[in-house]
Amino acid sequence: MGLIKLTLEYDGTHFSGWQVQPSERTVQGEIEKALKLLAGEDIRIMGSGRTDAGVHALGQVVSFRTHLSLPLSAFRDGLNGYLPEDVKVIQAEEAGESFHARRDAASRTYRYIICRKLKVLGRQYGWYPRCNFITDSMIKAAECLIGEHDFTSFCKISGEAKSFVSRILDITWDTTDEEVRFEVTATHFFHNMIRIIIGTLLEVGQGKKSIDEFRDILKAKDRSKAGPTVPARGLVLVRVSYA
Amino acid sequence: MGLIKLTLEYDGTHFSGWQVQPSERTVQGEIEKALKLLAGEDIRIMGSGRTDAGVHALGQVVSFRTHLSLPLSAFRDGLNGYLPEDVKVIQAEEAGESFHARRDAASRTYRYIICRKLKVLGRQYGWYPRCNFITDSMIKAAECLIGEHDFTSFCKISGEAKSFVSRILDITWDTTDEEVRFEVTATHFFHNMIRIIIGTLLEVGQGKKSIDEFRDILKAKDRSKAGPTVPARGLVLVRVSYA
Repeated sequence: MGLIKLTLEYDGTHFSGWQVQPSERTVQGEIEKALKLLAGEDIRIMGSGRTDAGVHALGQVVSFRTHLSLPLSAFRDGLNGYLPEDVKVIQAEEAGESFHARRDAASRTYRYIICRKLKVLGRQYGWYPRCNFITDSMIKAAECLIGEHDFTSFCKISGEAKSFVSRILDITWDTTDEEVRFEVTATHFFHNMIRIIIGTLLEVGQGKKSIDEFRDILKAKDRSKAGPTVPARGLVLVRVSYA
Repeated sequence: MGLIKLTLEYDGTHFSGWQVQPSERTVQGEIEKALKLLAGEDIRIMGSGRTDAGVHALGQVVSFRTHLSLPLSAFRDGLNGYLPEDVKVIQAEEAGESFHARRDAASRTYRYIICRKLKVLGRQYGWYPRCNFITDSMIKAAECLIGEHDFTSFCKISGEAKSFVSRILDITWDTTDEEVRFEVTATHFFHNMIRIIIGTLLEVGQGKKSIDEFRDILKAKDRSKAGPTVPARGLVLVRVSYA
């Protein structure tokens, strides 16, 4: 009876998010269906965290326990044989007996892509806000997010989470003529956190809010002060790191 | 009565190719439908050339004649309001009275993307052959294609074309750990020409054919000597150049 760790890549466009739901197409649901076909048993997987409908992943991590004894490459290729084109196993590894995909994650890295112009090829993986924006002020405003903060202002209050405290370890920006890539690494992310941060930063970029006002929003711990939630299509879970 | 030139970007994944066909979703069909809604008249467009089902474009060029007098930006934005997400007008310009999108094209540039590994995000825009290949020998073999040649060996004989002579002006390769980008500029391209060239080059890359054998295939003017036609999804019409 072994514990297996899988790294998954998926295109969130046609998924109703991560978690199994009756009569919805979800990533967890597709993986568990493929595991049932491969292993002949019902297996429940544990993800590093949920992703919302439309959010993509390059490196989501899951673990599960199985009686099945197969070479690790067969877990990857065997499951990929059953999985649809929009979710695949990139890597299969053996995990230590105590491994827990969610609890043991030291940090997660997400990327959000804002397009500077209308785009057809790759439109599924970026969002075009149909406005001009200045990235310099957005980059400057985002600096205050680094470190440990209460991110209540930038979270959808869904009743479940009791604390919105997280530590943002790193933020990087990569800007080209075509697009702006915002990459953020933190210990925890809460519901819609990155999408609300980007929505508020875009208001700064358009001159609707000042850098000082952005800083005040973080301190206010009040969701109503922040900007709108930008669409899921620009967001991708890049990797999950374990200590 | 003016002549308008449009530059189009489209994702070929869900199109049955370029040309209008009854009860099929085609790029030409979608553009003409949007023009009818915008201009209130039936307008026939002329493309620089057809693209097959599944082939994408970043810079397809079309022209049409209309009684409608609108600012050029309104042709772009107005049509985009009617067009679906997978085909958009990038630019609208006025064309000279004698302009002909197909006859006046001096050259076309296409790109084919071969992926080095299984890929989910962006899988629509590249093809993964599920084998290893050496690009050095492919690059060397492709050199013989430069210049004016009879490309019969690399074309699908469809009865229509009488000559398969074209001049390849340039070939460039851009290789990364993730993918190989093959870009080719020529005066003319015939049916499946790039997809058969890539299929044959991949046989060279796998050591199934030598560089000398590749050169002999070009000289043979015999389709049966060449390799298979690779899938359309990796192919994109990058631009059409006019003198």
